[in-house]
Amino acid sequence: MDKSEIDTPALIVDLDVMMRNIREMAKLARERDVKLRPHVKTHKVPEIAKIQVEEGGRGICVQKLGEAEVMAANGLNDIFITNEVVGQVKLSRLARLREQVDVYVAVDHPDNVSDLSRTMREQGLELGVYVDVDSGMHRTGVPPEKAPELAEAVSKSEGLYLVGIMAYEGHAGGPINREERISLINKAMEQTLLAVRLIRQRGIEVGEVSVGSSATVRYSSTFEGITEIQPGMYVFNDYYLVEREAATIDTCALHVLATVMSRPSPERGVVDAGSKTFHFDMNRYPIAVGIEGVEIVKFSEEHGWLILRGQAQEKIKLGDRLEFIPYHVCPCVNQFDILYGLRRDKVEKSWTIAARGKVT
Amino acid sequence: MDKSEIDTPALIVDLDVMMRNIREMAKLARERDVKLRPHVKTHKVPEIAKIQVEEGGRGICVQKLGEAEVMAANGLNDIFITNEVVGQVKLSRLARLREQVDVYVAVDHPDNVSDLSRTMREQGLELGVYVDVDSGMHRTGVPPEKAPELAEAVSKSEGLYLVGIMAYEGHAGGPINREERISLINKAMEQTLLAVRLIRQRGIEVGEVSVGSSATVRYSSTFEGITEIQPGMYVFNDYYLVEREAATIDTCALHVLATVMSRPSPERGVVDAGSKTFHFDMNRYPIAVGIEGVEIVKFSEEHGWLILRGQAQEKIKLGDRLEFIPYHVCPCVNQFDILYGLRRDKVEKSWTIAARGKVT
Repeated sequence: MDKSEIDTPALIVDLDVMMRNIREMAKLARERDVKLRPHVKTHKVPEIAKIQVEEGGRGICVQKLGEAEVMAANGLNDIFITNEVVGQVKLSRLARLREQVDVYVAVDHPDNVSDLSRTMREQGLELGVYVDVDSGMHRTGVPPEKAPELAEAVSKSEGLYLVGIMAYEGHAGGPINREERISLINKAMEQTLLAVRLIRQRGIEVGEVSVGSSATVRYSSTFEGITEIQPGMYVFNDYYLVEREAATIDTCALHVLATVMSRPSPERGVVDAGSKTFHFDMNRYPIAVGIEGVEIVKFSEEHGWLILRGQAQEKIKLGDRLEFIPYHVCPCVNQFDILYGLRRDKVEKSWTIAARGKVT
Repeated sequence: MDKSEIDTPALIVDLDVMMRNIREMAKLARERDVKLRPHVKTHKVPEIAKIQVEEGGRGICVQKLGEAEVMAANGLNDIFITNEVVGQVKLSRLARLREQVDVYVAVDHPDNVSDLSRTMREQGLELGVYVDVDSGMHRTGVPPEKAPELAEAVSKSEGLYLVGIMAYEGHAGGPINREERISLINKAMEQTLLAVRLIRQRGIEVGEVSVGSSATVRYSSTFEGITEIQPGMYVFNDYYLVEREAATIDTCALHVLATVMSRPSPERGVVDAGSKTFHFDMNRYPIAVGIEGVEIVKFSEEHGWLILRGQAQEKIKLGDRLEFIPYHVCPCVNQFDILYGLRRDKVEKSWTIAARGKVT
């Protein structure tokens, strides 16, 4: 199939750019001597997860049990759920999954440690656990001072063993100002390594020290003591990362292909892709590429409202197909069922986004 | 199945409240003597669309061809795509669909009229068309002054016939201030009825005059000359409509059920439902119901960040299940595969959201 035959809106991925992104991150991990666990919540496609593992990933990360189940069913067998798994229905699902593959979870609460332990004991299983340390994001996780207590609880719990700690510095990638980012990463790594020291002082071994988002990992992975990184967005990149100097327009592998479906006036247009296509979690719009003077300024659910400037006012016709880089690629991919992989203008792959919508 | 056995996050619908919402809108349409075409982009469930038709809808609205295909495949046969259908792949799909059911589209461009006409002619079909009039939203549509020209083009095009006009006043429901809303609806209805007069002055018959969102329809349907209304959100309602006096908390049929998965401090909590669950197109957070002192203040993709106040600080425990009313229900439903229909705490229905993600 040719690109021109793809109906819109559609997710299209430049396979050459994607492969280069995958290999560069694997190379960085090798050079820094850290384990790479790509976070597959970005693409949710088992086939891409397998490519990432083949190219140098030593396992994967997912954010949800449902994603882990899909990945396991498709042959992935070393899966870290970088999140707390809470509630009886999920614990039973987790036990069934643990029977099939190596799966790990994060914990930040002693009650959850007890529940996990009981579930695994009852099933005669052993589950690897990362203590979730809050290194400054203030979402989940325990502060470094409380990490030893939780690590000890895990170590002493039948059916569980301590893999190490996780300390996700997602907040540190936020600021567009470089100095602010670096400062937040420094503080986050300080807190992370403090947790490691405090746990070790209690005589408990810390195996993995897992950190890193695509926006921060090139710097956070340089800290002595970090053993594992979990970037996700780098596989495609997006405009969030471009603004934070972690990607360039040319390394953005994924575009949304859309059609101009209305041209109400010279300076206005509408494409057939809105908030149900791009998502809108960061309150920022996608960026048109390959053409000057086209800007999305508003969404309806199925409409992208365009302002056209300069030559674009004459150039853009009803039925034209435009390409956009999502501002935040992860929730955008999650809106679709299919991901088209292209080389030049030929569709080489048509992947099912098998873990799309796996929110439980 | 009992509510307590549903894994989270999940969409749960109170069937009694939903049925009451469906019947009240049907009653309003009967009283005003207008045709009700419920917009099913809100729920995307063919079974609910059928209930709406049985209870007094004379056909349905969809926003996308893909939604229309799903509805047609499930027995719905009178479908208005309230949107422009542009591009060769879509035109071929539209012709195939027209062979099976009565389907109608909106147009706002002469080139699209030509393309639709050629496609229908080639297939020996007749397609009903609504001229899309911009009544003040400034998205798609032609201004009233240009409506006669387009209506004439439709009327003269082989393979097409003019059903009437559509003039969606979605913008008018926006302001929270009641007087502003009323003022915008008045202006929109003035523009809509101007378009009707101008088309008729050219000797062209205007059948349907289709308007109305859930936020505006109770007022816009009172205008003499309106023949059809297309509200969607009323089936579930949401906090957007509550703020705009078109619903109350008690008439919000749909809740998101979520689990407290982290309790990092007395005043903080995290639920397992974030922007990939609720969506975030209006930059507003969902509202906790049934408990005081719980507020979502931030999203990550799979986390809802809670602030807890007052008694909630003691009451809310790890593993607790909370219910939220989405701020905007349509994109939220589109994040899920399953909709659970409950009476009291029993799951009576488990519907597949069959048109979820049908963005093409």
